[in-house]
Parts: sequence; structure tokens; C-alpha cells
Amino acid sequence: MKSKIITGGITAPKGFTANGLYSGIKKSKKKDLALIYSEQACTAAGVFTTNKVQASCVVINKGKMHRGKARAIIANSGNANCMTGKRGFDDSKKIIARVATALKLPESDVLIASTGVIGKPLPIESIADAIPALTQSLSKAGGKNAAQAILTTDHRVKEIAVEISVGGKKVRVGAIAKGAGMIHPQMKSATMLCFVTTDAVIDRGTLQKALNESVDDTFNMITIDGDTSTNDMVLVLANGTAENKKIVAGSKDFRLFRQALQEMFITLAKLMVKDAEGATKFVEVAVDGAKSKEDARTAARSIASSNLLKCAVYGSDPNWGRIAASVGYSGADVNPWKMRIYLGSELVLENGGPVKKDISILNRVFAKKEIKIRVDLGQGKENATAYTCDFSPEYVKINSAYRT
Amino acid sequence: MKSKIITGGITAPKGFTANGLYSGIKKSKKKDLALIYSEQACTAAGVFTTNKVQASCVVINKGKMHRGKARAIIANSGNANCMTGKRGFDDSKKIIARVATALKLPESDVLIASTGVIGKPLPIESIADAIPALTQSLSKAGGKNAAQAILTTDHRVKEIAVEISVGGKKVRVGAIAKGAGMIHPQMKSATMLCFVTTDAVIDRGTLQKALNESVDDTFNMITIDGDTSTNDMVLVLANGTAENKKIVAGSKDFRLFRQALQEMFITLAKLMVKDAEGATKFVEVAVDGAKSKEDARTAARSIASSNLLKCAVYGSDPNWGRIAASVGYSGADVNPWKMRIYLGSELVLENGGPVKKDISILNRVFAKKEIKIRVDLGQGKENATAYTCDFSPEYVKINSAYRT
Repeated sequence: MKSKIITGGITAPKGFTANGLYSGIKKSKKKDLALIYSEQACTAAGVFTTNKVQASCVVINKGKMHRGKARAIIANSGNANCMTGKRGFDDSKKIIARVATALKLPESDVLIASTGVIGKPLPIESIADAIPALTQSLSKAGGKNAAQAILTTDHRVKEIAVEISVGGKKVRVGAIAKGAGMIHPQMKSATMLCFVTTDAVIDRGTLQKALNESVDDTFNMITIDGDTSTNDMVLVLANGTAENKKIVAGSKDFRLFRQALQEMFITLAKLMVKDAEGATKFVEVAVDGAKSKEDARTAARSIASSNLLKCAVYGSDPNWGRIAASVGYSGADVNPWKMRIYLGSELVLENGGPVKKDISILNRVFAKKEIKIRVDLGQGKENATAYTCDFSPEYVKINSAYRT
Repeated sequence: MKSKIITGGITAPKGFTANGLYSGIKKSKKKDLALIYSEQACTAAGVFTTNKVQASCVVINKGKMHRGKARAIIANSGNANCMTGKRGFDDSKKIIARVATALKLPESDVLIASTGVIGKPLPIESIADAIPALTQSLSKAGGKNAAQAILTTDHRVKEIAVEISVGGKKVRVGAIAKGAGMIHPQMKSATMLCFVTTDAVIDRGTLQKALNESVDDTFNMITIDGDTSTNDMVLVLANGTAENKKIVAGSKDFRLFRQALQEMFITLAKLMVKDAEGATKFVEVAVDGAKSKEDARTAARSIASSNLLKCAVYGSDPNWGRIAASVGYSGADVNPWKMRIYLGSELVLENGGPVKKDISILNRVFAKKEIKIRVDLGQGKENATAYTCDFSPEYVKINSAYRT
């Protein structure tokens, strides 16, 4: 039994409602405040950025994770509320308090997330004033509003929902995500903004385990610009209303649930890369023949992070020497004489030197909107795949005037 | 006694001549083959890229370094002769053989360097045919030709010469360098293309020690695009014609000689950054208050490597949050509450939050052509400075069509 994609996003699982509106943060007056709510108590799990500079929302949520319980996630976009001093923490707590009051929840049940510019205080009164309207109009249909309200430079809403069957009971998992720049999630349980809901019956430890095991080959394998954010997080709420036989670690049901998460995450991760700031092309970098999984990941991420390669992709120039160079400086165990490089299905490097190819064939591969690069390290059996986009003059323009 | 800048470059020291000409590599028909020659036997030292994918020139020179002797350096631009298989090695050896024959030297006395596109065989016959003309016209004035012939996307020649006094004798040191892209020299004795000549009397071990100790705070602290080259090297030839009292490690003379190298390298390193592909601005990133020298270097290099910051510099947007984020993910020991960030002389971050500043003041700092960023980590007493440039749409354009 595999997972099945169903319509909707964060509100597809039973018992979850959501909403999103403009609360006064964004100059564009686009939606900038999102709320996700469960009518029932939830098991909660989360993974967070490994950046040592962390926004107040990251610090606050991490402090709540030991309880493993929550019922609401309040998230704003347009302002990261990071490097905003003690005031930043006070503002986050004020928002949590207002949401808790409006929803009649203890403050400990409310998680918080922020994304946007760093170092600028939030317009706290304006946000606080918007909370009653936000909570009063929570609905199933409001999932779309929430998906819009967490976006920054993203062009497209990123949401997905799947259904799996656990012991004959239908279990739904829904998710929304955002991210188009400052994207280079660091290994070990760190990633971008993504909120997941599920009606599965699952305990906290098992939920956290499934989450941990789902980010390494998905969100942690994408890069847009090599900059790791201060605010990255994935939060999962599971309210148990599907009434399935409890999912326990190591079981077939657990693997099915984890696989559903992985499939959702890889879909959302690819959506992020495709929606990346200024991106005109999507690049899949597959590394195999590595001595270790870590080597495969390191090499794939290094290639995907090469500014020079990303410029060549933008210009449709099949300059594979830059792939070889970025594997060489990755730190992975590399023997240039054993390495093979493929552009699409075309072998271009073997025995330490170029394979004769009509350049027009390679030009055609690099002219595509979706480009596949494969590097066989010839050293072992491990593999990993990274995802990235090209580097365009438009990326520079977007990020040269982000605050204005 | 300090070093004194004198006119000239690679041929300023006694006994050295040089030349450069077009040998058929570059489509532009600009000079692409350089030769540096010493009339006397030389002590030789070198440092090389730590990239595991290394061009044949790097591998060949490293093999010769244990002798610590050489009299000539042949270098081509426009083609890196890297990932060109066995043929690449054969081509490098053929060039060395031709130069050795023409100069009546053993092959072991000829070092080789290449820079340019990866994965493309050299036009070896054309290069070989050019060698007699190259060797026949070696001269003091030819130093300028050599400086031109090692350039790729560089706009400007990078050369410098200094004079120091060792035990009453004048000692000269000259250098040429190139580099405008694929610049992110890795720590531990790796750097870009730079050739140094000196008429100093100094033994091999002492010369290598002076070189090793001169690259870490100079070439290894610049970054243009985060891509570490496969062909980076610095070579030094010392022919002893200054007849100074031999420079020995640990002496005052040694420190003077090393300081001369450091001053030359930092000048050339800054010239590289200022001449970087597409660069419109020069950025100095000073980190102090670090717990260790390594932490200071790591943090400074991480800030200087942030694509997002470099876009903000291009756009004159004083978005210092990106500085905080890049320190946070650098791996250095960081406490966001103790960190201070300065743009120019303006303090912008303190106690974990923004310092109130008129934005017009910060805009003025970031509008400058030369920008200073200072981060006080507040953790200790070590410091380091990195140098970088902005990221412009022009950089992308140059590197989207490098091979065409």
C-alpha cells in the first residue's frame, strides 16, 4: 500500500482548520499572518535550523518540544523577528498569549514561526489586533489562506496532502511550506518553514523519529543560494482523530507513514527549488558510487551549491569542468581517474578526461528547463540526490533590494 | 626596516628574465603563454590547491617540490589542462620538454602552470611551436608580457616588486598573479596562480616556511565566488644573486622577508578581488573578539562568502541581518547576544538586537565603492580579515557563457 495524493493541504486531515490574512507587516499588503488549529489535543514534533543565530520563534518552540504537545501554530511572513533583541522575544510571547486567549488554549499549546527580513522589530500592535479576526474565521477552506500567508518572495503556494491506510483506517497527512531564498538547510534536523498536520494516532517519540528520518534526503538536500536561515523549522501536529491502530516505530505502518512524509517533503522541496528567486531552470544532481552515504550527500550538495555551475546552467553552457571541480573541493573521497560525469544520459568524463561528444548534443541537454546531472564516484555503493536551480541576474536583482 | 615598493614585477630581482606571447589557445588572440627564467640555479618552493581534482600541472609540480630546485616556470592561460586524462599529463610533459631543450635545462628544472577552461585538451602543437620564440626573446622588459599572458577574465595586470635590506645587502622580491573567478582558496597551503621571484639567498626549507606562513592571512582570506579551483598554486624561485647573508628561519631577516611576502600577497589578493568578474564594489570583512584564530577566519570567510550579503552590497542595501545569519552558520563559536556588528564605523547590532540608526546613514555606508564590515564576536581576542566583492548580474553573465 502506497500513499495517495488527495486534494487540499494543511486542513485535509480531520479536525484541522486554518486561516491567513494581512496583519500590517508587508508593504505589498499581501497576507502575512497564518494560523493552523486543531480541535483536538495533538502530539507535536519539530526540527530546527542549526544556525547558531536563531530567531526567537526557533528558541521558543525548541523549549516547548520536550512536552511534545501543541494545538496551534501562528506564523508570520515579511519579518523574521530575528536579531531583534529582548523585544523580539517579548513580541513572540505576546503573539502567543493573544492566540492562546482567543482560542482558549494554554500558551504552551501555541507554537510560533516567523520568516522575512532580519533585525527589524515586528509591528506588534497591528499583529495583535489582527488575531481575533484570524481566529474567528478559522475553517477548512482557510488552509489556502494560511498557505499564502507564509510566503515571502515565493511566487506559488506550496501545499500537499496524502492519504494512507493504517490497519484499515484512512490516515491523512497535509502540509504547507515556503522558501525561495536563503535556502541551504544544514544537515542534522534542520530545514525551512514547513507545517504538517495529520489525523494519525502516533506518539511523540515516534512522530519525531519519522520527522527526523524524513528531512535528510529531502529538505536537507536542496540548496538555492548556500545561505542557511536563522528561522528554518518543520513542525508536525498529529491529532489522532483517524482512530487508526497506533503507529509504532519499526512497524510496517511506521515505514508507510515515514514514506508518506518523505514523498510530501520531496515534492515540497522541489516546489521550493522551482519557485526559487530568479530561477529559470531546475537541476537534479545525482551522485552514486560513493564510499559512504555522507560522501554522496556531501558531493551532491557541493555540486548543487557551485555558483559557477549555476551560472553555466543559466547560460545553457554545458561546462562540466565546474562539476568536476566542485566534487573535488567537496571534501568527499574522490579519485578523479575513477569518476564519471553524465549530463542527462550523455557520458562526458571518464578515465580522468573528456569523452568525445558532439557539443550540439550537450548544448541540447543544458538548454532544457529541467537538467539532470549524474556523477558516479566509482568508489562504493552509496548514493544521494540534491536539487538546485540556476543562478540568474534576476536572483541578484531580487536580493540586491530585498528590504526596499 | 620595512620593505620598499620598487618598480617592475617578476623581473625586478637580479638574474630573472621573462616573456609572454600568444600561442594559439585564446580565441581573443590575447597573450596566453608566459615564461619566467632565472640565469642562475634557484631554490624553489610552492603551495597548491587542496581540491582533490587537480590539474596535471599541480600534480607534476608537487612531484618536483621535494628537490626544491627549479629555474623556469612555463604557464599558459585560456585552458586549465585539467580533467584531460592521460593526454593532459603527456601535454604538460611535452611542454616542459620543449622548454627544457630550448633553455638547455634538465626537465626537472622546469615548473608548469595552467589556468582556464576545464576538460578541454590543449592545442599542443601550436603551443610547442611557440616555445622557441618565447625563449629567444626573454628579457627584463618581458616581465610585463608574462604578467599579461597569465590572465583569463582579469581586466588588469597584477604585479608588484619590493626591496628589503638583509645584512646591508639589498634583496628584491617580485611577483605576478592572476585570478578573477573560481576564487575561494582553501585553507592550508592552497591559493591561486601567483609566481614570485627573488634574488635572496635562502634555503629551500626556509623559503617554503616563509611561503606557507604568508598565504593563510592573504590569498586564503579572499573569496570571489566560493568555488575552489583545481589549478591554484603559488611558486617561488630564489636565485641567491643578492649575495645577502643567508636568511635563516626564526631570525629578524626571516621575519622581514616573510613580511615582504605577506605585504605583496595582500596587495595582489586585494587586486584580484577588485578585478573580480562583474565586481562593482570591494568589501573588507574584519572579525575580532573570536575565541580562536580559526574561528575568526571561519566567521570572516563565511560572511565574505554569503551570496545574499554580496547581492545586498551590489544593491547598496545595508541588510546586516545577512551578516548575522552567515556568522551563525559559519561553524564558529557564536553567541548572538554578545555579537556586535558595524557597517563602516556605525554600530548596527548589539545585545541581540538592532541599534537605532537613521537608515540614510547606513545607506551612505553601503553606497560606497569600498565597504568595511566589522563583527566583534565578544568571545575572545583573536581576529582575522577577509576580502570579497559584490555579486552582480554581470558576474552571472560572464560565467553563463565562459566557454563561448
